[in-house]
Formats: sequence, structure tokens, C-alpha cells
Amino acid sequence: MKKNRLKTFASDNNSGVSPEIFEAIKSVNVGHQIAYGDDDYSAKAKKTFQDFFESKVDVQFVFNGTGANIVSLQNMCHSFHGVLCSNLSHINVDECGAPEKIAGVKLIPLVHDQGKITPQQILGEVHAIGFEHHVQPKVISITQATELGTVYTFDEIKALSDIAKQYDMFLHIDGARFSNALVKTGMSAHEMFVKTGADILSFGGTKNGLMMGEAIVFAKHADFRFKKYIRKQSSQLFSKMRYIAAQFDYFLSSDMWTKNATNSNNMADYLAQKLTDISGVSIKYRVESNAVFVNIPKAWNQILWDLGFFYYVWDELDNTVRFMCSFDTTTDDVDEFVSEIEKLASSS
Amino acid sequence: MKKNRLKTFASDNNSGVSPEIFEAIKSVNVGHQIAYGDDDYSAKAKKTFQDFFESKVDVQFVFNGTGANIVSLQNMCHSFHGVLCSNLSHINVDECGAPEKIAGVKLIPLVHDQGKITPQQILGEVHAIGFEHHVQPKVISITQATELGTVYTFDEIKALSDIAKQYDMFLHIDGARFSNALVKTGMSAHEMFVKTGADILSFGGTKNGLMMGEAIVFAKHADFRFKKYIRKQSSQLFSKMRYIAAQFDYFLSSDMWTKNATNSNNMADYLAQKLTDISGVSIKYRVESNAVFVNIPKAWNQILWDLGFFYYVWDELDNTVRFMCSFDTTTDDVDEFVSEIEKLASSS
Amino acid sequence: MKKNRLKTFASDNNSGVSPEIFEAIKSVNVGHQIAYGDDDYSAKAKKTFQDFFESKVDVQFVFNGTGANIVSLQNMCHSFHGVLCSNLSHINVDECGAPEKIAGVKLIPLVHDQGKITPQQILGEVHAIGFEHHVQPKVISITQATELGTVYTFDEIKALSDIAKQYDMFLHIDGARFSNALVKTGMSAHEMFVKTGADILSFGGTKNGLMMGEAIVFAKHADFRFKKYIRKQSSQLFSKMRYIAAQFDYFLSSDMWTKNATNSNNMADYLAQKLTDISGVSIKYRVESNAVFVNIPKAWNQILWDLGFFYYVWDELDNTVRFMCSFDTTTDDVDEFVSEIEKLASSS
Amino acid sequence: MKKNRLKTFASDNNSGVSPEIFEAIKSVNVGHQIAYGDDDYSAKAKKTFQDFFESKVDVQFVFNGTGANIVSLQNMCHSFHGVLCSNLSHINVDECGAPEKIAGVKLIPLVHDQGKITPQQILGEVHAIGFEHHVQPKVISITQATELGTVYTFDEIKALSDIAKQYDMFLHIDGARFSNALVKTGMSAHEMFVKTGADILSFGGTKNGLMMGEAIVFAKHADFRFKKYIRKQSSQLFSKMRYIAAQFDYFLSSDMWTKNATNSNNMADYLAQKLTDISGVSIKYRVESNAVFVNIPKAWNQILWDLGFFYYVWDELDNTVRFMCSFDTTTDDVDEFVSEIEKLASSS
Repeated sequence: MKKNRLKTFASDNNSGVSPEIFEAIKSVNVGHQIAYGDDDYSAKAKKTFQDFFESKVDVQFVFNGTGANIVSLQNMCHSFHGVLCSNLSHINVDECGAPEKIAGVKLIPLVHDQGKITPQQILGEVHAIGFEHHVQPKVISITQATELGTVYTFDEIKALSDIAKQYDMFLHIDGARFSNALVKTGMSAHEMFVKTGADILSFGGTKNGLMMGEAIVFAKHADFRFKKYIRKQSSQLFSKMRYIAAQFDYFLSSDMWTKNATNSNNMADYLAQKLTDISGVSIKYRVESNAVFVNIPKAWNQILWDLGFFYYVWDELDNTVRFMCSFDTTTDDVDEFVSEIEKLASSS
Repeated sequence: MKKNRLKTFASDNNSGVSPEIFEAIKSVNVGHQIAYGDDDYSAKAKKTFQDFFESKVDVQFVFNGTGANIVSLQNMCHSFHGVLCSNLSHINVDECGAPEKIAGVKLIPLVHDQGKITPQQILGEVHAIGFEHHVQPKVISITQATELGTVYTFDEIKALSDIAKQYDMFLHIDGARFSNALVKTGMSAHEMFVKTGADILSFGGTKNGLMMGEAIVFAKHADFRFKKYIRKQSSQLFSKMRYIAAQFDYFLSSDMWTKNATNSNNMADYLAQKLTDISGVSIKYRVESNAVFVNIPKAWNQILWDLGFFYYVWDELDNTVRFMCSFDTTTDDVDEFVSEIEKLASSS
Repeated sequence: MKKNRLKTFASDNNSGVSPEIFEAIKSVNVGHQIAYGDDDYSAKAKKTFQDFFESKVDVQFVFNGTGANIVSLQNMCHSFHGVLCSNLSHINVDECGAPEKIAGVKLIPLVHDQGKITPQQILGEVHAIGFEHHVQPKVISITQATELGTVYTFDEIKALSDIAKQYDMFLHIDGARFSNALVKTGMSAHEMFVKTGADILSFGGTKNGLMMGEAIVFAKHADFRFKKYIRKQSSQLFSKMRYIAAQFDYFLSSDMWTKNATNSNNMADYLAQKLTDISGVSIKYRVESNAVFVNIPKAWNQILWDLGFFYYVWDELDNTVRFMCSFDTTTDDVDEFVSEIEKLASSS
Repeated sequence: MKKNRLKTFASDNNSGVSPEIFEAIKSVNVGHQIAYGDDDYSAKAKKTFQDFFESKVDVQFVFNGTGANIVSLQNMCHSFHGVLCSNLSHINVDECGAPEKIAGVKLIPLVHDQGKITPQQILGEVHAIGFEHHVQPKVISITQATELGTVYTFDEIKALSDIAKQYDMFLHIDGARFSNALVKTGMSAHEMFVKTGADILSFGGTKNGLMMGEAIVFAKHADFRFKKYIRKQSSQLFSKMRYIAAQFDYFLSSDMWTKNATNSNNMADYLAQKLTDISGVSIKYRVESNAVFVNIPKAWNQILWDLGFFYYVWDELDNTVRFMCSFDTTTDDVDEFVSEIEKLASSS
């Protein structure tokens, strides 16, 4: 018998909206404002981003992560360019080919190590430069935190950024869970994005308590002249922009981003710690943000789903499953989940 | 000296969100829901659409009007197809070439009459069928209400739909202001979309008081097998779908859609009526929804803008200006605006 | 009873290959050469182009006219750019939407006058600059000689080129019948392309006696850095390039281009002159190259076709038909054709 | 001191045109023919293909291999489809991203074994069917002979074809060197293409003595309704089609295809055999068509190039070099080449 539960471990997109966000969007619901981003609140939010990044970054608000990524790639690439990324990256696996279709680029997947790619792998692909039969490598795209929940260190990002500069490429960061990475590493946004020399960041908030919206952050040094046309043509220009701007403004100028990311990170740590000693369960990747990847017996899948704990099977071969924690996950939620797993383990 | 005014006549996108919408989205902010549209509220909203259209239509929620249009076109067209539309249509003029870039199609603009296109114009383009040097006409796309605020009658839509069927084409309706057209004509959604035999409707709510979101409505008879991939690849798949679904659900199941559209239509009528007798002002197109297009002396533009009444110059040649009324426009707003215009007229 | 005739008036693509071309391609069939254009013969042909244009132009050989045009447009445009062209232009009408599909651009058709477009029309479209909702005009594309057989004068091209420069646009010339225009006007290639300040020329030879191939000529001042990638990605990079290079080398360094174009132009003049006084026949457009457009009674179409004189009906409304003369059309061919038309006229 | 040599081992595209081809194309240079493929010679060539394949296949002539592949893929795929191919495949490595840019598809590279891919690898990618976040696998594309010169057996092709059918996918064969594979295996075209159940074949002739052109062969069972529009829009429709048709007609109806492919295969065998016992040289892949891949000391590269024996370094890591034999390679050419290598080996 399947139960309905209010919390699952399926995805940080399954959670709702952090309550204070409703106040934020209501507060800007005052009269008319020029549409399409030329409003007072969008200007204010841009200033908040510049404070947050301690740099004169430019910002474009778009609807979602796929939108942010394809607009980013179109700014950096012509269609004959190649994008070097992890084989597990969201752009490679979870965007239904949007980068190829919309940006026209070729993704060059590199086999990940704990979700990450390395300078050595990049160097292995920087060849045939000037040879028109091959796409020309132009972007290194990393995900921070990665799709496996791991986090790049400052030095790791800096090394990739340096190679990018050396070979006239760009460094793009898909930061759908950028807040989680900041919280985990203790780095500031300035350190992680500006000091590393990255070029464009897809900064997500939806997985951390916002209703919708993603911010494309352009480094101060970057000169992407056509960004406004690219956003519009990619159908990512929101008419009533203030309602995304207000969310990000509140998110970054209050403690919301850090409070929510801290909670989901902590709940993942807590969950991983409780799972460690359970027989039949083994942690597969390092837990460094809000995801816990574990191997469990396949027979447990259906039982746990029937109990209402929805989650994803990531790799069917070894029954790797992904448990995601959210901004609203509580220790009670984890305890309840773990107790059911323990029951399964003890009866196995 | 420029004044700040809470109401403008620039665009129905400049207005804010109808207050009851905040209640609607808060009401679904309960626990976790499966992301990307497989949630309870999206299912409920789909049912509401079927009730509203009195037909087993299918529905996809997307982020905005350009998104709705390009997803619609990709469902109906291969890249070697042509889309017959008014030269003033939003897809032709206001989407920065997204239909060409994303769907790859060719738009074939037909010179509008009061914003509309006619069966005779379609017949003039249905040639070279099977001739591979030419794009093959496949879609008739009309806007209802049109970009000029006029409204197609049932017979006009039906005639275009019949021709579409006769030549193995589709009829697409860009309904960014569909509610205004329904209110104006007194037709039901069933009459205007289902009985006319149209195939796909881009049904907008943002210009009528919603925060964001557009619904693509697929006629029951239509068999668009790939729609889910097209929406995702076009970066129009919203993760926390319930927050668009809830808006549309409330919009269509309450009197919100009709109340708001009635007000903006009425305010346009009221404005037009008051402008009619002012010297120097002449109404350019029939006022049938919430837009009023008038010719005014060019010298007035800057003065009215400085007073805070922002609006658009639509055609510089004869200084055609567009005044849009919104769901929150009041007779006081109109009176104040007209009184300033009267002052200008009397001093000219 | 339909006769087979060796000569038609359907298209200059229906004619075969000028016999000397076989010698030209055989002469380069000597041993191995580096493929894809890095061969000695391609280098030599490039030098021939520079001599012909009296300027350090760059040249890319491609397969055909559509290929030349889409490679040209991709060099000049991003997908959010607009291309201003005649509504009758080959890119707008006869390339099955390739510019939209491949380059992603929007074509903005201007109503032709005798096949041409004017500076005034361009000025009417140079608006909304910097407004992201509209495609940004970037290219003026003209056809020389035009699809109607007329020819732009030096001053007409120069005026369009000047406007292009003034508004940061490019001037593209689709020169599928460029030779015919040179012969007609007596201008040199230097005058028509270099001195007018045009940017890219699609220079065709196939309609003037070559077997295949088109040359994209880039003005010396033009800096199109990505052209080699664009040609390759557009599948227009020929492996055994020497066999196109040799054709163009011979074409331009001998009197072939002028001899062939002179003949087809003269035959058109001769045909037009003979048709002028025939009752029921009226010349529709000025005859300035190798095309003759006439109105004839519809009833004649089938009869003439049955006699083997294949030609195209250009406009069904007034039965405008197009008679094309080729490099191998003779006065005998014309005489025979005209005598049949005269018979029809006398029996009408 | 660099010598000029008439024969290299760089590429079978570096060779010239088989002399009898000039006769073939001259023989069709008779009067006018309807352009764009509706000519008598194209009809005759199609019949020749049907005889050659012993099946009512359909045929489209295009300009080159990249053109054939992208037209093929567009017939089989929507942009949200995935194409499973070897990581070394021409479509993945040597077409500058044309499949992604033009067809919009995602290529899913599988790590080759001797240039080939296997049913097991396909099965590993046939997942997430119906899951809109992922591209949907739709085509298996193999190269026959492979880019490494190996050849798929009948059973290997059949097994891939069976999986394709099982999962509602297509099997595409990139046959740039299809003749070489036929000769090597002794299979007929009927066996290799028709009996295996493949769907589309890109059949090349340029690497086997033709001047230019590639034939897309569509299986009789295949229903690709839009192929003519796709070819035209992809700028692969040749106006004077007869000059490609005549080449293929002669190629397949005479012994040219088998004579030429036999020679280049034999020369590769002869070269490999002579290299086998040379110290410092090791054959890397099985020699099954006209390519020989060997590892040689890096120091030899420049010396051999300076002697005029141009060839490609395929993999810099272990200095894998590719020696290609052509239809016109002779034992003398091989002997001369090998004697220089022997000198290097003896002095090492």
C-alpha cells in the first residue's frame, strides 16, 4: 500500500517554495513596471548580485537551468565549437539535446571521476586546432556542485580556468547547486567565480527554495555583446521580470541562500552517516553537498517506493540510487526514511 | 519633470499580478510534488482546461508566449515548412527570429487588414506543392485578439481552418489575449477553438493578471506525438510546474479570466470613446479588445511621456501610438490620461 | 505528339557543359594532390580570381549556389540578424528555406521593382536597432543579374553599399549570373564588386557553361575569420577541389566567361526583339541579361511544351512565362521557337 | 630536401579521377536536360542502382560524404533523437559538427573496437525510453569499411540491424568505402545492404576513382517521405545532376568499382605484408580494406614527409600513422615507399 508523504528524497526540484519567497514577490506587486527587465526591481537585483560577487558582474535572469545553459553556450560558441564536459553533466545527459539543437555545438563528453573532469583530460582534447574537419574546443563546462554531489576545490577550478585562458577557451560553471558548493567549501562567490577567472555562471535558485528562475552571471572581464538577443531568441526573456528579480534579490541579500543550502547539505551528511553502518548499503561517491549516492539491494527499490519515499535509480547495473535532500528536509524525515531501510536490512 | 505613475498605457505586461494569484500559488505550496509536471496540481489543471474547452484537449504549460509559439510550430512543422501569418504577427515581428532559429521554418508574412489575414491570401500562397525548391506551406497562424486589438469572428476562423484542412495544413492560434477575444465575442472557448477546428492554441494568461506561464492547448483530434521532447528541448519544461498549473487552474475555474478581460476591454472602449472627439486625435483601428491605436500629433509624445504616461509609438510614419489597458486599469486612470490629452489638444 | 529537342528555354541549368571545360579538368588529373583545397590548382585559381578582380580577394569554392549563399550568410550573420532581400530573390524563394534552417536568420522580403530593391526600402527597415525583440538588420542581399534578368547599375549597387556601411551592415551579391551582368554593363569585376564596396559575392559559373561549382569571393577588406569552419560544417568542402578550381581558373583566365555570357545575353535580346511585334505577346520586364519574361495566352503553354520547348510559367495569374537563353543557344534555336509562336499568334 | 611525388599514402581523396570517368561524363554532355535530377541519365542511373542492389531501392545523388550523412540523418531523426556511433566515426570526428548543427541531433559516441561497435554497446544505451530529459536513441550508424580499415561481417551488420528493429531504430551505413568492403568480403550489395535489413546507405565513389558525388541509397522498405526537401534544404541538390549520375552509372554497371577497390585493397595488403618484418614497425589494426595503420618511431615522420610520402599521423600518443592506398597505387609505389622505410629501420 502506497502512502503519501510530504517529503521525498527524489529531487530538490520536488520540494516547494521557501515561504519567505511569497513575501518577496508580493512586495514588488505594486503598480506597473516596464516589462522585460527594464524595471526598478531588476536593476536592484543586479546591484545585489554585484555586491554578492564583489565585482561588476552582469546578470541576466532566465526561466530555468536548461535555458541558462543554452543561452550561456550561445554567448561563448559558434556552431563549429566544441564544449568539453563531464559525461554525466546535465548539459550532456539531461537537456534532451538542447545544446546541440539550439546552440548547434558539439558536446565532447569526458569520463568523470567523482563527477569531475580534470586539466589532463582537457589537454587530451585540445588538438586539431585550426583543422576545419574538427569542431574547435571553445568551452570547458563544469557543474558545481557536480551531478554526483561532489564539489570542485578552488585549485581545481583555477587550474581549469587557466587552461581555458591558455587555449583561448571559456570556463562555464553550471551552478544549479552553486549555493551548496559555497556553503560546503566556505568560499565566497567572489572566490569561486571571480578569483578563479571563470567566464559565465548559470546560477540556480530553484533547487534551493526559489519558485523559478535562474541567473546567468557574466564575469566583469567578459564581453558578450549579443547576450540580450540570444536570451530573447531562446525564449528566455520573461515579461514580468520583477517576479524573478525579487526572488534572487531576497535570496542573496538575506541569509536565505546560506540557510537553505546549509540545511540540505547537513541533511545529506546526516543521512550518509546513518546509512554508513547499515548492512547492504554502501556509499558510492563522496558526500559534499545535498546528494547521497548509495548502492542498495535492488529488491528494496519497490518496497521503499511503496512506502512513499520516492527517489531515483541512477545506475541500473549496480543499483546505484540517488537520495537528494532539500531545503525543507528535516532530521525527522531522515530518521523515518533510515528506519525503514534498517528494517529492510535486518530482514535481508 | 517626469512623474512616477503606478499605471501606464504601455503594455498589459507592465501591470503586476492579480492579487488572488498569490493565494492560488500559496495554496499548492504543500510538501513535495513530483517535478516537471507529473504532480497532482498539474493533473488537476489539465482537467480544468478540459472542462473549460468542453473537450478532451491536451495541455502543456510553458514559460512564455514565445516559448508557446516555438513549441507549437515545432510540433506542426519540419524545417522545410512555411508558416503563413500576418506581417504584424508576434511570431514575425516580436520574437527576434525565434521561429526561424529554433523551428527552422520560414515565415511567410501576409499584409494584414486590421491585423487579420484572409482565406484569399492563404490561397495565393498555396502553390508549388511538392516542388522541393520552395518551402511547403504547413501552418496558418493567426493571433486572437490580433496585435492591433481586433478580433476574428467565428466564421473568419472557421474559414481559415477549413482551408487548412483542405490543404493538409494546421491552424495555430496565438492567444496571448485569447480571454479578451472570448469576452468580446461572447463565444465560449469550445466555440472559438474546438468548433472552429483549430489545432493548437497558445493560451496566454500573463497579459491578463497571471504572474507567468502560457498553456499550449492541443485539440483532441491532434496527434502530436513528440510534444514532450519538443517542450523539454526548447527549454520550456518547468521543474516546479505546480506554480504555473495552479495559476491557470484558478484563472479558468474562477471568474478571474472573464473579470479581468472584461475590465481591460471596457477600459479600452471607454478610452476610445473619450478620445473620439478630441481634436488632433483619430482612432486608427477598430477597438475590439484592450488596445487603442490612435494617431496623435508627434509633438505630444514627449509631453505625455514626461507626465509618466508611458506608451508605445507603433508606427513612426504617421505617429500611430498604442494605448494598452490592463486588468487593473480604472476609469480614474483613463480620465486622468484623457484630461492631459485634452489639455494638449486645446493648446494646439 | 511531344518532340525531343536538344535545346529548351527552360533554364540555363538545363544546358550542358561547355566543351573546353572537359579539357580543363582533364589537365589537372595528374597524380595526387592534397585534398580539400590545399592543392596547387586551387592556389593557382585563387591567384586568377585576384587578377580578375584586381584585388587581393579571398575565394572559397563550394558546390552550388544555395551552398554559396548559406555559407556567405553564416559568415555575415548571427541567428538574430535579418537579411534584407527582394521578395523574388533566390534565397527567399528557391532555396527551400535553407537560409532560415541553416543560418537561422530571418529573411525580410522587400517588394521588388523590376527584380531590384532600393535604398529607400532599406531605410524603411533599419529601425528598432538595439531592440532585442526584433531581429537586427545585418545584410542587404541583391542578385546580379536579378532573377528577372534585369541588372543593377554601378550607382545602384554603390548606393546600397553605402547604406550598408552607414548602418553597420554587409552587402552580399548573389551572382549566379554575375558574368551576364558584367557583359551587359561593360563593368569590370573590379568595378562591380570591389569599387562598389560589396562584401561577399556568390559567383556562379554553372549557369554559364561550367559543370558545377560556385566561388564565394570575399572582399579584401572583409575579415571573416571563421569561413573555413562554416564551409566545412555546411557540407560544402569538396575533397577533390582541383576539379572545381580548374574550371574556374579556365573560365576566368580565358575568354570563356565573356564569350558564353555574351552569347546568352545576345540570344535573349534577339528573342525579345523577335517577340516584340507578335500579337498576343508582351514583354514584361526589361531584357538586360539572358532572360526574357513575357505574357502569352495561357492556351499556348501546352502546345509549346508539346513541341518540346520547355520553359517555366513564372506567374500563373497573368501567365507570365520565362524564356532563358544559354551559352549554347543559337539563332536557329530562337528562330525555330519564334516561328512556332508566330503560328500560334496567327491562328489565334 | 622535399621531393614532389605523384603518389602519396595520405588519403584516397588525394588521388585523381579514374580516366574512364571523363568518357562517362562527356558521353552525357549532349544538349539540354531537365535540371535537378529529372533528366534521362539520372533515371538510368537509378535503374543501375536497383540492378546493383537487386532491389527497388531509391537513390539520391548528393555532392559529398558529409552531405550524404547529414541528409540521411535528417531523414531518420528529429532533433531530440540520438545517433549511436563509434567514437572514431566520420560523423563524430570529421564533419566539424555538421550532424549536430544541421540535423540538430546528439551523437552518442561508443568506444570502438578495431573501428567497430557492437550490439552489447547499443543495448547499454537503449534506456530512458520515453523519458523526455534524454535524447531518444534512433539511429545506429556504422562505417563500412570502418575508419580504421576493418570490415563488418554479415552477421555483425545483421545483429545491429536486428537490434535497431527491435528498438524502433534505424541502421545507417556510412559507406564512403563500401566498394572496398564488398570486394574484401565477397558479399554482394544485396547481401550487405538489403539482406542485413539496413535502412540507409551513404554510398561513396570519390575515394574509389570518381570525381565527386555520393549516392544515398534508401532501402525499399523505408518510407522517408521528405527526402527531396531535406536534400534541397541541405544544399545538396545538384543542378546538372547528370554529371554525377553518369559517373555512378558507369561505376556500377562496369567493372570499375570492383577493379579499383580490388587494387587499393591489394596494395594495402601488399604494403602491410612488406612492413610486417621491418624492425620498429608494427601493424596496429587488422588490414581489411585499403588502409594500413602502423606504429613507427616518431623520428621517421618528418624524414618520410620530406621524401614526399605524405600521410597522416592518426594518434600522436603512440605515433600511429595511417597509410592509405588508392585505386591508382602500384606495387612500384609501395616498393619505393617501403624501401625508404627499410633504410630508416636499418639505420635506427
